[in-house]
Amino acid sequence: MSAAGRRLPALLGGARAFVRDIPVGQMYFPTWERYEAAMRGIFEREWYTNHGPLAREAEERVADVLGVRHALCVTNGTIGLMMAAKALELRGRVITSAFTFVATAQALTWAGLTPVFCDVSPVTHHMTVETAAAVLDESVCAVHPTNIWGGTCRPAEFEAFGAENGLAVYFDSAQAFGCRVGGRAVGSFGALEVFSFHATKILGTAEGGCVTTNDDELAERLRNIRSGYGTRAKVAVPVTSNGRFSEAQAALCLLALDDLEERTAHNRAIRSSYVSGMAGIPGIRVVDPPDADPSNEQYAVVQVDEESFGLNRDALVRALKAEGINARRYFFPGAHRTPPYDESAPPPGELPNVEHICRTVLQLPVGALVDYEDARVIADLVSDFHADAERLREAAGG
Amino acid sequence: MSAAGRRLPALLGGARAFVRDIPVGQMYFPTWERYEAAMRGIFEREWYTNHGPLAREAEERVADVLGVRHALCVTNGTIGLMMAAKALELRGRVITSAFTFVATAQALTWAGLTPVFCDVSPVTHHMTVETAAAVLDESVCAVHPTNIWGGTCRPAEFEAFGAENGLAVYFDSAQAFGCRVGGRAVGSFGALEVFSFHATKILGTAEGGCVTTNDDELAERLRNIRSGYGTRAKVAVPVTSNGRFSEAQAALCLLALDDLEERTAHNRAIRSSYVSGMAGIPGIRVVDPPDADPSNEQYAVVQVDEESFGLNRDALVRALKAEGINARRYFFPGAHRTPPYDESAPPPGELPNVEHICRTVLQLPVGALVDYEDARVIADLVSDFHADAERLREAAGG
Repeated sequence: MSAAGRRLPALLGGARAFVRDIPVGQMYFPTWERYEAAMRGIFEREWYTNHGPLAREAEERVADVLGVRHALCVTNGTIGLMMAAKALELRGRVITSAFTFVATAQALTWAGLTPVFCDVSPVTHHMTVETAAAVLDESVCAVHPTNIWGGTCRPAEFEAFGAENGLAVYFDSAQAFGCRVGGRAVGSFGALEVFSFHATKILGTAEGGCVTTNDDELAERLRNIRSGYGTRAKVAVPVTSNGRFSEAQAALCLLALDDLEERTAHNRAIRSSYVSGMAGIPGIRVVDPPDADPSNEQYAVVQVDEESFGLNRDALVRALKAEGINARRYFFPGAHRTPPYDESAPPPGELPNVEHICRTVLQLPVGALVDYEDARVIADLVSDFHADAERLREAAGG
Repeated sequence: MSAAGRRLPALLGGARAFVRDIPVGQMYFPTWERYEAAMRGIFEREWYTNHGPLAREAEERVADVLGVRHALCVTNGTIGLMMAAKALELRGRVITSAFTFVATAQALTWAGLTPVFCDVSPVTHHMTVETAAAVLDESVCAVHPTNIWGGTCRPAEFEAFGAENGLAVYFDSAQAFGCRVGGRAVGSFGALEVFSFHATKILGTAEGGCVTTNDDELAERLRNIRSGYGTRAKVAVPVTSNGRFSEAQAALCLLALDDLEERTAHNRAIRSSYVSGMAGIPGIRVVDPPDADPSNEQYAVVQVDEESFGLNRDALVRALKAEGINARRYFFPGAHRTPPYDESAPPPGELPNVEHICRTVLQLPVGALVDYEDARVIADLVSDFHADAERLREAAGG
């Protein structure tokens, strides 16, 4: 995997830099021994789901880590988003970012709501109160910002924006577990926040997620929506579902909480390796997680300026894939350009920053399956690609 | 746990028959050794979710066992029902049984549909084409029968009913994995069927389920609804979700398929013990799984005639609970009497059989945590309760 000096890119016939394909997601799992200890307990108790002792412990610890009154663990983040929209009893249109994973919008559709997509900052890639204000009208009942890239959208500004305009405010924080901003952990802003514990996330339970809130009544509604046979006092809810977190998911959650600091530090080292390794490459910007202190270091995002780098984003992704690096474009082509929203999407050019970012951004590997040295090798490859840009353009297109 | 001769019920101060509380659900799990072998493979592959190799194998084997072209494994049965209603692209009202788990109806609500509840047979406890016809009008677009109690609703009759009346037909078969009727496995009737793999079911993965269909295009729509980033060719779908089946769920599914025959035989023995042990008790009927050959033997359902038995159902449940037996009333008070449907429910008396069954039915333990002898002890207890009915009525109420 060493890459001293210039080497021939795999796309031009050189040897692959990595033998095994490297994913971009976190893929952190505990050691088998720790997993076994936790799972044997579940087998002994013969209690496999339905809000068991590990699920309850996981919720307490998540709430404690995030400094929030209620954490409800759920099957996955998408179900959490769907439950959240129903629990908030919204009616009408909801402003959200067009630069997000489709589930943000799809959950609104499941809940009978209509997303209104707004543009984002060209620097932070987050929606802002200004881009939200640009699409605000009287049909809007809520604003639903997303915290992405291990950064935040400055959630306190959205709290103020919601209060000023009489809007409900709740966050899709799928990518933001462990981020802090202004001295507060992400998880206690707005009416509620929704996290993902997917395997690609820093706190991964294969599938999973949680909803957090400081509002006691909202928490009670969420519990009742989560399961048709909740154990808590009944409060009126418009619909119920099954968002139950199994004991096996909870076991992974507890182990991941133990490891959160170590995982974050590991990722921080990887990111710093990318930053220093690619500092001198024209047209390559490693995106700094915006407005988070600290970041959870969940992603290494790179933005490509085709003119100075010599290749466009898609060609760079192809060149990296040929080396065994599954670099990925993200959120392409933008939520507003995916079905069913593409039918009523704003005309091209109306969300210029989203459109530009969708064409120029890619993710590089972070997480359990890479380290500082791998990131350096990848940075060197990108440097070599720049030097070989002309030949690669011919081979890769773009 | 022996119970030769008359004994003093625990509710009247006698010793509990069972030291540890006994649940009614299946709670079948593999041995630790077999689980470990399967899970170590997942750890080695570092592939935890997103339609991995075990999920694909589980789908092939489920389809094979059920004799159906497509089986899509999903997070849980409720999500499966929600996905199904969306995949069928229904609009309007859907006839379903009022005697069902609330998720049957709630999934319709999530999909923007309105349930129309019908009555059931007083003998089989299933909705029939006659009870469905009684609530049919022009606003109805589909009929959605349920297969419960390890029996069936005679699904072929509903296929004909749907064809005659121009209705979509799809089944909630949450309780019916492994049942056959008329030489066909449940799973290939109607447009599709939805199963649950909850821990209480004969094929349990803690949480889980599947959707089965012989319709290639419908299967493709379901795959796209199941995940916002499906790997298959795109077909138009009205919405996407996250119904992904993790590799850990798939590992449990594969082991449970290996054990299905043995589990069913174990349950069959338990049920036969209840049947013979309670044969002579006045006012107690062990419900025979209707219209299934074979049944999956998933439940031991008892219907109580208060007048001849001497206690009503609720008093019997309390007397059993005092002995450590978590007997449970099921589907009480009927889906039509739960929010939000209770607001527009038919007036009391309009679904007389459902109302009567909701008041008189209970479930006794089956599954991994009891055996033939335990069932005999429980039958003897019920016999003793009949003899002591007068004193128990005073102690338990009813």
